[in-house]
Amino acid sequence: MTSDTPQISFITGNTNKFLEASRLLSDLVQVAADLPEVQALDSETVIIAKLTSAAVELEGRLLVEDTALHCSGLGGLPGPLVKWFLDCLKPAGLYSQVAATGNMRAEARCVLGFRDKHGDHFFSSTQTGTLVAPRGGGFGWDSIFQPDGSEKTYGEMTPEEKQTCSMRAVACLQLVEYLRGSS
Amino acid sequence: MTSDTPQISFITGNTNKFLEASRLLSDLVQVAADLPEVQALDSETVIIAKLTSAAVELEGRLLVEDTALHCSGLGGLPGPLVKWFLDCLKPAGLYSQVAATGNMRAEARCVLGFRDKHGDHFFSSTQTGTLVAPRGGGFGWDSIFQPDGSEKTYGEMTPEEKQTCSMRAVACLQLVEYLRGSS
Repeated sequence: MTSDTPQISFITGNTNKFLEASRLLSDLVQVAADLPEVQALDSETVIIAKLTSAAVELEGRLLVEDTALHCSGLGGLPGPLVKWFLDCLKPAGLYSQVAATGNMRAEARCVLGFRDKHGDHFFSSTQTGTLVAPRGGGFGWDSIFQPDGSEKTYGEMTPEEKQTCSMRAVACLQLVEYLRGSS
Repeated sequence: MTSDTPQISFITGNTNKFLEASRLLSDLVQVAADLPEVQALDSETVIIAKLTSAAVELEGRLLVEDTALHCSGLGGLPGPLVKWFLDCLKPAGLYSQVAATGNMRAEARCVLGFRDKHGDHFFSSTQTGTLVAPRGGGFGWDSIFQPDGSEKTYGEMTPEEKQTCSMRAVACLQLVEYLRGSS
């Protein structure tokens, strides 16, 4: 159990993720560290280890996040390993690998791990969509993911548009709801 | 520092890897556990964390191993993440992904981490080769890796043949050499 402070420490080396979350969550501060992540294909395994690891170093209310991109054509890869695919292949290369399979369906899944004085809590959301050749900016794989129901990739959307159909926004709103109930 | 016992505990859930190592190393016993592995593209990062993690639970002389398959066409992927590629794509699917890039070159790299009363020691070896459509048996990606200088895949070789050109055998022989000098 940790004593609660007004602030929530979001431990992430990714400032883009922090900015998206801070549009929805107040009292959020970034702790710009890349926590080691375990190898796994399910985000829960990654996030439970990450939250435990964060709590070794930090006190107060803690938030960690994992976003996985599961491509049907790749049998579920890259999942939580997407960072390494982007490092090695860039978004265009990841798109090409998926295109070679002929199956462009994908699921983007965000899992949040949150620790407060009541314990550990997990929130998750999945957005289905299609991988497309890169269009627009954004970060990570935003330019190659077109969520179902939209004709734009995440990379072509304004922050406001992305917020209406983003797995990260939905998971953050679940946390907002929890915080409202627990305060 | 750990007190040394005659045996060396090789912590691996992979009995095939144990059998290969035990052809070269005496006093080897298998501790059949899958230690958590951190996400990384370099085997050193993986193996240092794995050896530290093993030493939390076990005493005496400890051995951990990581074998990475770096494919040039995939910008170095899958590297130490190859287990997940095989889980999702099977060897044939990994071959197909590489074939789609037109660049079949690959490096297979084995890193051993060994702890004794003198401290931590690391041994590594790399074998270059080509990815091919699956031929033969073996385990892991043996059936799709043809080492340079051979017309057979690892999967088509006898254990004796594989031992003459395997990155794992060379790394194990480095450890044998170290043990000879330190005893």
